[in-house]
Amino acid sequence: MKKYVCGVDIGGTKIGTGIVDETGNIVAKVKIPTIASEGRDAIVGRIIESIEKALDAANLTTDDISGIGVISPGPIDSKEGIIINPSNLPTFVNVEIVKILSEKFKTKVKLENDANAAAMGEYLFGSGKGTKNFVYMTVSTGIGGGFVCDGKLYGGTNSNASEIGHHIIDFNGPKCGCGSRGCYEVFASGTAIARFAMEAIENGEETLIKEIAKGRDVKAEDVFKAFKEGDKLAKKLVENEGYYLGIGIVNILSCFNPEIIAIGGGVSNELATFYDKMMETVKKRALGANLGVCKIVKAEASDVGILGAAAIMF
Amino acid sequence: MKKYVCGVDIGGTKIGTGIVDETGNIVAKVKIPTIASEGRDAIVGRIIESIEKALDAANLTTDDISGIGVISPGPIDSKEGIIINPSNLPTFVNVEIVKILSEKFKTKVKLENDANAAAMGEYLFGSGKGTKNFVYMTVSTGIGGGFVCDGKLYGGTNSNASEIGHHIIDFNGPKCGCGSRGCYEVFASGTAIARFAMEAIENGEETLIKEIAKGRDVKAEDVFKAFKEGDKLAKKLVENEGYYLGIGIVNILSCFNPEIIAIGGGVSNELATFYDKMMETVKKRALGANLGVCKIVKAEASDVGILGAAAIMF
Repeated sequence: MKKYVCGVDIGGTKIGTGIVDETGNIVAKVKIPTIASEGRDAIVGRIIESIEKALDAANLTTDDISGIGVISPGPIDSKEGIIINPSNLPTFVNVEIVKILSEKFKTKVKLENDANAAAMGEYLFGSGKGTKNFVYMTVSTGIGGGFVCDGKLYGGTNSNASEIGHHIIDFNGPKCGCGSRGCYEVFASGTAIARFAMEAIENGEETLIKEIAKGRDVKAEDVFKAFKEGDKLAKKLVENEGYYLGIGIVNILSCFNPEIIAIGGGVSNELATFYDKMMETVKKRALGANLGVCKIVKAEASDVGILGAAAIMF
Repeated sequence: MKKYVCGVDIGGTKIGTGIVDETGNIVAKVKIPTIASEGRDAIVGRIIESIEKALDAANLTTDDISGIGVISPGPIDSKEGIIINPSNLPTFVNVEIVKILSEKFKTKVKLENDANAAAMGEYLFGSGKGTKNFVYMTVSTGIGGGFVCDGKLYGGTNSNASEIGHHIIDFNGPKCGCGSRGCYEVFASGTAIARFAMEAIENGEETLIKEIAKGRDVKAEDVFKAFKEGDKLAKKLVENEGYYLGIGIVNILSCFNPEIIAIGGGVSNELATFYDKMMETVKKRALGANLGVCKIVKAEASDVGILGAAAIMF
C-alpha cells in the first residue's frame, strides 16, 4: 500500500481537501469555496482543482496516493458512487463523482456520507474515544449525523442512516429543501439562523446584523458577531438556536441512547453562546433514563471531514 | 437447563404471561387487565397472579421453569431490574420488579424494555427474518420501538434506545405523560386516537363514537368501530392517525435507514384502515434514498411480547 491517500470533504459552502498519511496526519490541506449556485460543472471543476492543489502542496502526484476518499452530504448511493441530491447542494443532482474522479486521476475513488465519515473521525480521534455508542452531529449549512453502534459505524441499509437533519420536529413547520416540512435543519442549521435573521430584518426589527452583513445575504456568523456586541435580536436568535438544537438532541437521545453526543460543524464554534439554553431544553424534555448516561459535548477532532474522508480509503 | 421459561409482558392495559418451551412454543397463556389506575401494589399482585395462573394452566410449578423474563414499557433500568416510570403506567414508579418476583418465585428473573424484546421476537419469528437492519414499532397505549442493527438487538447504553414514542414531532404540541410536549405518542398512539375523539365530542361534534362508548371513556376501538359504520368524525380521526404515524415513520427512516419497519401493537390490527394515508405521508416527506430500500409492513408474529420476554431468558 502507498503511504498517502487524498480525502475530499464536499460541503455546502466549502470544499476541504487533504493529503493524509497512514498515521492520520494531514500533510497538506486546501480549502476553497463550493459556490453551489454556479452549478454542477463548476463544482466538479473546483473539486478537481482542490485535489490538484493539495497534491502540489504536498509535492506529490497521483502516483503517490493509493486513492481518493470523497465525502458528501446525503443522500448518496455509496455503492454506485453517486451523489443523489443533497438539499444544501441544490445543483448537484445524480453526480457520478466516483466515475468522474477515477477517470480523471486514474486511481481508486470511494464515496461516503459526510457525516458518517466525520463521525468515524471524531469517534477514533476525538471525543468518542473509549465509548461504544456514539452520535456525531454536524451543524453547518445543513445538519448531518453519524452513529457508531457497539464500536462500529452504522451506515444503514444504503449509507443513509443518521440523516438527522431531515427528521421532522414540527410537522407544520417551514418548507425544507428536501421537500418535507419542519425538518430539524430548517430550525437549527446555520442556514436557519441566517434565514430567521433575514425574516426579522424584513419585518423591520432593529438590529446590528443588517450593518454587519453590509447589503449581502446575512450569514450565521453575522448573527453571532452581533450577539457579542449585545444586539437584542441576535440574542433572541442565539437563544432560539439553543432551543431548537436541544429539541433534536432530545430525539437523538430517545432514538440512539448514546454515551456521547458530539456537536461539530461551523455552528459548533459558537456552542458556548447557546449551550445553556440547549441544555435547559434537553433537561426539560429528554427522558431522564437517556440523559443520565449521556454527555453532550463539542466535537474535538479538527479537520474531521478530511480525516473521515481519508479513513474510508485506509 | 430446564425445558420451560415464563415470559411476562406488562402493558399499559394488559398483562400477558406465557409458559414457553425451548423451541419458542407457547404452551400456556394468560391475559389479564393491568388496571393501572389501581396503583402499584394491585398491579404487582396481578403480575404474580398471572404467573401462577399460567403455571397452573401448563400444569407446572416454579421448579419446572428456568426463570421469568419480564418486559415493561421504558424507561427501565435493566441492570438493576427496576421499572423507572413508564408514562402509560403512571403509578408504577421505581418498582424493583426483579427483586419482588425472584423473592416470590425463588427463580431467576430478568427485565428488558418491552419494545426491544418484542423487536427481537418479530425479528426472529416474524417479518424481520433474513434482514440485517430492522425496526419494530408497537402502537398501542403508547408507542415503543426496537432496533436490530446488523443482526443484533441494539439496546443502547442502558437499554433505553429506540424510545421512539418520546421523540418530538411538534415541539409546541400537547403535553405528554413524560413531561415533554408533542411526542410521537401524543399524536399517534391508541390513547391519542381516543383523546382526539373525546375532545371532538366535548366540542359538540356529531358522532356515533359517543353511543358506542355508552358513557364510559372513549377507546381507540370505538373510533375504528364507528369508522366501519361510516361515521364522519371517525373517518377524520383514522385519516389523522395515518398522517401522524407516517410523520414518525419518516423520522425512523431518516435515523435508522432500515430494510423493514414492522408495525405491531393493538392499533396495528386496524392498519388497513389508515395504511394509504400513512404511506401517502411517508412518500411525500421521507428522503427517497431511505424509503427506496425499506418496506413498511404489519408485524407478523403473534404474542411477540410473551415470546420476546421468554427470549431474554433463553
